[in-house]
Amino acid sequence: MQDITLAYYGAAAGLIALLFALATLASILKESMGTPRMKEISEAVQEGAMAYLNRQYKTLIPFTIVIAILLVVVLPMLDPRVEGVPLCVSFLVGAICSAIAGYIGMNSTTKSNARTAEAARSHGLGKALNVSFRAGAVMGLSVAGLGLLGVSALFIIYGDAVVINSFAFGASAIAFFARVGGGIYTKAADVGADLVGKVEAGIPEDDPRNPATIADNVGDNVGDTAGMGADLFESYAATTIAAMIIGNSIFGMEGALFPLVVGAIGIIASIIGTFFVRTSEGGNPQAALNVGLWATNIMTAIGVYFLSVSTFGSKEGFGIFLAVAAGLIVNVAIGALTEYYTANTKTPCRRIAEASKTGPATNVIQGLAVGMESVFLPMLFFAAAIWFAFWAASFVNPEHAIYGIAMAAMGMLSTAGIVVAMDSFGPVADNAGGIAEMAELPPEVRKKTDKLDAVGNTTAAIAKGFAIGSAALTALALFQAFADEVVRNPKLQHLLVDGQLVMNLNNPKVLIGLLIGAAVPFVVGASTMRAVGEAAFSMINEVRRQFREIPGIMEGKGKPDYARCVSIATGAAISKMIFPGLVAVGMPILVGFGLGALSLAGYLTGLTATGVLMALFLANAGGAWDNAKKWIEEGNLGGKKIDGEPNPIHQAAVIGDTVGDPCKDTSGPAMNPLIKVAGTVSLIIGSVLLR
Amino acid sequence: MQDITLAYYGAAAGLIALLFALATLASILKESMGTPRMKEISEAVQEGAMAYLNRQYKTLIPFTIVIAILLVVVLPMLDPRVEGVPLCVSFLVGAICSAIAGYIGMNSTTKSNARTAEAARSHGLGKALNVSFRAGAVMGLSVAGLGLLGVSALFIIYGDAVVINSFAFGASAIAFFARVGGGIYTKAADVGADLVGKVEAGIPEDDPRNPATIADNVGDNVGDTAGMGADLFESYAATTIAAMIIGNSIFGMEGALFPLVVGAIGIIASIIGTFFVRTSEGGNPQAALNVGLWATNIMTAIGVYFLSVSTFGSKEGFGIFLAVAAGLIVNVAIGALTEYYTANTKTPCRRIAEASKTGPATNVIQGLAVGMESVFLPMLFFAAAIWFAFWAASFVNPEHAIYGIAMAAMGMLSTAGIVVAMDSFGPVADNAGGIAEMAELPPEVRKKTDKLDAVGNTTAAIAKGFAIGSAALTALALFQAFADEVVRNPKLQHLLVDGQLVMNLNNPKVLIGLLIGAAVPFVVGASTMRAVGEAAFSMINEVRRQFREIPGIMEGKGKPDYARCVSIATGAAISKMIFPGLVAVGMPILVGFGLGALSLAGYLTGLTATGVLMALFLANAGGAWDNAKKWIEEGNLGGKKIDGEPNPIHQAAVIGDTVGDPCKDTSGPAMNPLIKVAGTVSLIIGSVLLR
Repeated sequence: MQDITLAYYGAAAGLIALLFALATLASILKESMGTPRMKEISEAVQEGAMAYLNRQYKTLIPFTIVIAILLVVVLPMLDPRVEGVPLCVSFLVGAICSAIAGYIGMNSTTKSNARTAEAARSHGLGKALNVSFRAGAVMGLSVAGLGLLGVSALFIIYGDAVVINSFAFGASAIAFFARVGGGIYTKAADVGADLVGKVEAGIPEDDPRNPATIADNVGDNVGDTAGMGADLFESYAATTIAAMIIGNSIFGMEGALFPLVVGAIGIIASIIGTFFVRTSEGGNPQAALNVGLWATNIMTAIGVYFLSVSTFGSKEGFGIFLAVAAGLIVNVAIGALTEYYTANTKTPCRRIAEASKTGPATNVIQGLAVGMESVFLPMLFFAAAIWFAFWAASFVNPEHAIYGIAMAAMGMLSTAGIVVAMDSFGPVADNAGGIAEMAELPPEVRKKTDKLDAVGNTTAAIAKGFAIGSAALTALALFQAFADEVVRNPKLQHLLVDGQLVMNLNNPKVLIGLLIGAAVPFVVGASTMRAVGEAAFSMINEVRRQFREIPGIMEGKGKPDYARCVSIATGAAISKMIFPGLVAVGMPILVGFGLGALSLAGYLTGLTATGVLMALFLANAGGAWDNAKKWIEEGNLGGKKIDGEPNPIHQAAVIGDTVGDPCKDTSGPAMNPLIKVAGTVSLIIGSVLLR
Repeated sequence: MQDITLAYYGAAAGLIALLFALATLASILKESMGTPRMKEISEAVQEGAMAYLNRQYKTLIPFTIVIAILLVVVLPMLDPRVEGVPLCVSFLVGAICSAIAGYIGMNSTTKSNARTAEAARSHGLGKALNVSFRAGAVMGLSVAGLGLLGVSALFIIYGDAVVINSFAFGASAIAFFARVGGGIYTKAADVGADLVGKVEAGIPEDDPRNPATIADNVGDNVGDTAGMGADLFESYAATTIAAMIIGNSIFGMEGALFPLVVGAIGIIASIIGTFFVRTSEGGNPQAALNVGLWATNIMTAIGVYFLSVSTFGSKEGFGIFLAVAAGLIVNVAIGALTEYYTANTKTPCRRIAEASKTGPATNVIQGLAVGMESVFLPMLFFAAAIWFAFWAASFVNPEHAIYGIAMAAMGMLSTAGIVVAMDSFGPVADNAGGIAEMAELPPEVRKKTDKLDAVGNTTAAIAKGFAIGSAALTALALFQAFADEVVRNPKLQHLLVDGQLVMNLNNPKVLIGLLIGAAVPFVVGASTMRAVGEAAFSMINEVRRQFREIPGIMEGKGKPDYARCVSIATGAAISKMIFPGLVAVGMPILVGFGLGALSLAGYLTGLTATGVLMALFLANAGGAWDNAKKWIEEGNLGGKKIDGEPNPIHQAAVIGDTVGDPCKDTSGPAMNPLIKVAGTVSLIIGSVLLR
């Protein structure tokens, strides 16, 4: 029983992170919300965000119940070895933890927006960064804390990583809907608010006369905060459990517990890292955030080195430490590449801006080209990291190689706490700027929040790279764990050669699965992209209607019906997340039971490859389009207007940006949970597949 | 020696097709070219096309020589078993045959454009179809004839399919450049002519005052005819040889010769099929073409059935016949799906048109969504065909299964003669319309050529589906042949388990190869797309310059400098085909020698999966955008103009169409030779890889 003690460390670290998050939230709530108008706006955003979350989770209840019943009734029927109750309990705990993380984080960010604006107004930039980053940290540490606590606690109860793998499935099922629904919501509101408000009516962004402005601010929270949080919660849970399963089958209990302690180290490092994020008036908030991130990375690396060497001995331990380090490095590399392809100081983005000179068509063509070319180097990095992790983990025994990839993923995700904090701080700053505008605060307040918002865009790009990278590594870890499960499946012993599962590319079953899997990201991409188009269309019509029908609305006398726009975005997001969700969860089940385990292995591989490619393509194209537009708006190539007339170059860039919106914030991000949900579903059914 | 006789059948059928093509060409040349003006224009197009072909092939000579030297010197150094001379000779014959097919076909189509216009003027629709389709048939039968003749003759000389596999490599190296160069040429000229001529100067399409109009008509030939011809020549050669290699290793000489005779049946059926293409004034040209295609398919199926049963016995022979039939059916299915996703009578295209109401951004988003969703059903069909072909070919012995996929590919390609004929007829009709316009023939002539041109758009879509489908099946056949070669490689015996090559997805080498391969189509897509943008940019500037500097050009008095536009398009296409060409040929060599045979296997799989997906995505999105614009131009949603003012809905659709142009005619088609060139390169190096 000495062994299991380490799981208590994991649980304790998770609990500490959670308590730290709640204490931080309490301290934020003590800050002033500013003027009554600011309070009013903030509460409207909060209300809208909570209403969305409530409806989203309520919609998912029947789905969750159906799955829970399948787990507790049908799986044990397929195979009497399966313990249905732990599977079902773990699944529900995973789903509930994901929801709780969403609620805590959303509470924190929506309650901090006015407080950030007020901090910028009465205290200055340093305090504004402090409030908004702490709000992000609440989200980040809730995600990591609940993830680690949940896995550790279930492991303490059931003592077997395989039994609790449905915790990850619960997390991933919720994450897919949160990501897709949030993505549809945020872009429908954004496009609707922009097209009618900015373009047609000519009023500024976040103008209180725009009926969609509250929905737009809600969207920042449900998409960028709740969606991203759920996404990384899922990666965290899935990676930890996959690493535990693989670790257990290679090293026994020691190998199963090791990932939990790596998680504990990362989470404590993240908590300490948040204290490094400090800046003064006139300081550089980006630099402050980078210090926090690097401090966390370095502390984690040092901690893991000692842990690893003491657990596995100097040679093997050093190898496993290298694998973990590879994960940390890929994280940094993908972030840097994402920045290169999307930053408006770099060639790719400038090319898009230049192409706007010959109109929107050449802008779009150039943007597609940038997106496509941006996939290659990240894929090369993944390939290198995979190779390196396998190599490092096989210093002592070549059969330990697959533990390497799982630990690289674990290394990357161990710092999720601070990465999510950095990401979630962005929407808070963005919202704060919106509130400053709507509450008509002095322009210098807006300038400060804009400075934070600009940094938020960069951290969001880094977090996006992190989410894609971690999804890819998580998918690979899940794949290995799945193969492990198939090996244990008594009905599938005929697929083994020398006790190993052979998934030969030459086998038509593998090949067909691979081709089908490779096509699925395109289907999900198409349906989510179309969902945004349709939802935005309803939003556009509603905003136009209000401008037309509400008397005095343009003079600021008639009050726009914000709630109606919020409710339209909510309804559209909820109804349109169903189809891609069913594809994501249903396809692996169909392929697995219909075509068999080898086809499912092919499916996972094909899906992961094109899923990651599409995620990078869509996210980077969208980011580059966005920044090309912003670069022109900064006054380059003629700026927004030439001699009072709209500059056609800017107009072309706006069209590219609008095309990029659903790419980067809906369809692209949907790829991460898509590949992970396939992995967690496969892991659940791997041991009961019939052929 | 009885066996080898069948190879003479193949050679004879190839020769017959070639002679039939030349006789047809001679008979076309006897037709009248019409007025001196028509003759003049036609000669300008011809001259431009030939100048392009000459420069393209001249540019490729050093490249070809380097490869020839590598084959004859370096490969035998790596492995003394390799016979350098046959490899080198076969490679050169393949490259030269591809070039000859290009020259014959181009000669035929560029010499028939004025003759088709004249036929429409003096005789009517039936005769115009007759001339233009015969011109296409010259291309189609040259492609198939030279392919079959080349493979058969080399096999008669060397007696070993493995030795002559570089015939396919020669064909594919040329094909990649022809496809990419032709694609860049055609779109640079098209976009340049349209943007400045139609949009800025407001003159109609094909107006003689437009300096880019000859280049535009040349582009139709070098892109749609020469590019497509080279593409399918490559598929034909590669599939035949891959099927022979696999057949030989399973059935010995009988299995090696069978594909040649299937080719002979298909080619004779194609010749007969051309006689079914007849229509009268007021008749339906599409129906006439369909009759020809179906007649060919049915004759081929019947012939192959009897051949197969008599060669392999009733049970096995029936199975192999079914595999061939699966290829024929996939051909039809992919064509139908392509039509569904792109035809302007169907929902996807209408959705794009409707989305144009809210501007270019929503049009583009909807187009991307249509392109993405269009990949799923074709992939499902491929998967089903693969499964079916494997199943059918394993009736007697499961180890014969892989012959099925090769024969499905062979079945599909056996009818290449008539498919290329149908495809090549389109540019002839298109050019004829251009000549009717430029030579100011009466409007009813243009109406007739437009009717043919519209049919040409449909047959082009069908051929595009055929090219993608055949590329996919060819790639799979090449993959199997590659695996076969690796098994024979003495240095790689450690990769075998029970004499079989195991390319396990669990193996990190396979996985990293797969990830890298999956990313390459994105890189080639980006570089070709950007090439079109840059080439079009030079073209736009040149046309603007001529409009500005040549006095009296707009009044029809000053003569535009057509040759300069032709030369700009030529130069841009040639210089910009180099980078993607090096990627296509170089990457498999780098992966193979750098990472080893297992990574190369992964590379081929990843490349094929995303290559086919990107080909479908880009081609169908582009086609749907194009047809959505055409549908609006037919007067729907307000048509081109509303009350004399440009209709913004139409303008939005024009932007979508322009985005789609490089997608469907450059980047998309580049995917086919990309995946095949990787296959042929791998097949060459498979037996000499060092690890």
